[in-house]
Amino acid sequence: MDPSQVNIPPMKDLTVDNITENVLTINSLCEDQRMKYILERLVTHLHDFARETRLSSEEWMTGLRFLTEVGQICTEVRQEFILLSDVLGLSILVDSIDHPKPAGSTEGTVLGPFHTHDAEEMPAGDSMSHDPKGEPLLVVCTLKDMQGNPIDNVKIDIWETDSTGHYDVQYAGREGPDGRCIMRSDKDGIFWFKAITPVPYPIPHDGPVGRLLKKLHRHPYRPSHMHFMFQKPGYDHLVTALYLRGDPYETSDAVFGVKDSLTVDIGKAGPEIAKKYNVPEGHALLTYDFVLVSDAETFQLRSENSKIALDKLGRKVKIINGLPVPDLD
Amino acid sequence: MDPSQVNIPPMKDLTVDNITENVLTINSLCEDQRMKYILERLVTHLHDFARETRLSSEEWMTGLRFLTEVGQICTEVRQEFILLSDVLGLSILVDSIDHPKPAGSTEGTVLGPFHTHDAEEMPAGDSMSHDPKGEPLLVVCTLKDMQGNPIDNVKIDIWETDSTGHYDVQYAGREGPDGRCIMRSDKDGIFWFKAITPVPYPIPHDGPVGRLLKKLHRHPYRPSHMHFMFQKPGYDHLVTALYLRGDPYETSDAVFGVKDSLTVDIGKAGPEIAKKYNVPEGHALLTYDFVLVSDAETFQLRSENSKIALDKLGRKVKIINGLPVPDLD
Repeated sequence: MDPSQVNIPPMKDLTVDNITENVLTINSLCEDQRMKYILERLVTHLHDFARETRLSSEEWMTGLRFLTEVGQICTEVRQEFILLSDVLGLSILVDSIDHPKPAGSTEGTVLGPFHTHDAEEMPAGDSMSHDPKGEPLLVVCTLKDMQGNPIDNVKIDIWETDSTGHYDVQYAGREGPDGRCIMRSDKDGIFWFKAITPVPYPIPHDGPVGRLLKKLHRHPYRPSHMHFMFQKPGYDHLVTALYLRGDPYETSDAVFGVKDSLTVDIGKAGPEIAKKYNVPEGHALLTYDFVLVSDAETFQLRSENSKIALDKLGRKVKIINGLPVPDLD
Repeated sequence: MDPSQVNIPPMKDLTVDNITENVLTINSLCEDQRMKYILERLVTHLHDFARETRLSSEEWMTGLRFLTEVGQICTEVRQEFILLSDVLGLSILVDSIDHPKPAGSTEGTVLGPFHTHDAEEMPAGDSMSHDPKGEPLLVVCTLKDMQGNPIDNVKIDIWETDSTGHYDVQYAGREGPDGRCIMRSDKDGIFWFKAITPVPYPIPHDGPVGRLLKKLHRHPYRPSHMHFMFQKPGYDHLVTALYLRGDPYETSDAVFGVKDSLTVDIGKAGPEIAKKYNVPEGHALLTYDFVLVSDAETFQLRSENSKIALDKLGRKVKIINGLPVPDLD
């Protein structure tokens, strides 16, 4: 890049007090308004963080080394930065911001680092888990819109651990997907399948994030849950999970994902269900009625929330591609 | 860790509005008061950043992927997180916070990612650069305390690029240190050596930080400079650099390091200097008088600044190991 072609305001003698406005000024050369706004808030908070803590050079270096380790332990099947975001509560916050839910719709929760893109589509009634030690579970769900109409042909990603609390990708010798599948809702908005009863498990804590939790005196456990992700054009992408009520970690999830509306009891199949889904009477049963929000409803809510957030900063808002930037006019 | 042994407040149904206080509460189990305070400010700013920008899941993932790349490009001789901190103005800010300078002392500046620990001690007058294409430079400096007394036996790390703008560690075939040395000030507080006239250079911009600068329409150049680091028990560690006045990047340093008090003119050796230091008359000459601050003076200034910063947050301060934590009494 030829610096003579770039319009840079003169910067020199930067101090604790004037560094922030100078970095914001030079970054304001960015032509992408959304990126410019994100960088503006990022730099402001990063600098305020250092000023408020009086961050020492040694602590700064400790932090950079920590982040380096977090990056270096990442592989195709391990995403330690997602874990870090999860344990700091950022993941659940971003999900709540990006996928606001009107009353009556199914709440979202953390994606977590174990979703993959290689799960295979499975016909209704098949089993997504091949772990013989798991407790067999029949899962029967419905899928509706906010007006109560069934939604068909939704792509549904479902994933859970095996009976030892490990996802398939956590095994070195993984040959293909297990404990995960893709289903489609039928014309009545129903999807059903066989799985195993979820168990609690620790998030991977043999790396830098685990060490952080230990220093914070926090445990790394997640309560028993099963992940669901719903996608269909016209509907807001829903990432959620169902949690088992009474789990020992129900109120201390290491990644802050549990919501009361997503907490379920495992029931028992009565004679009718047993016959209809071809399982023995008394077989463990999980049922849930999911409600999706349309893109239009989500866009509306998101825009209203953006306006409120920028109002708090004393700024007018302009929505570009569904996301806010300050309106300078 | 046995969760029954840990006192965790119940957390469920976490929302955009209550997630922050819940994360702070669970992190407050940490017994290290300084770490607890740092985490409190970190989580608060991280969450406010997401709330104020209405960060989308896609942007969140873009950010995590970026940080992962920054971590993964790091090696023994490349520290991309320091670069990232540098271009965001965090490095110069942390240096200014941690090493406050009373009027009359030498200002500090960014360490940068190219300091190594393998430079060799060199006697006065030797040459630290073996690049035959560099313009030979005689450097004669003095080192005093705030009261004007010379300081002897200070360990001085000095490093600069070669004539092409590359540090030794940027060459794949590096066999040992070059363009760097360690000197000691003599009984009169003087140290002198031969080097080459510094040249401007781009920070490494073939990685994620370079791509970020490009998206921000910023150039990656640093103005011509030579690094100095001073260490002696009883004196505050000084990381600084001298910049050449009139450099094309003097007012647009990619890492915000230039200070007027650190900007120098390259002079010419007159007959006396030429004879004394055994160089031809007219030889390029750089002189500078460095002034170190004592640990006690620095501690005092740092504590005063900490009090002011925590006052702004409406909190009383307690100094532990020289660093502030909120005083809860």
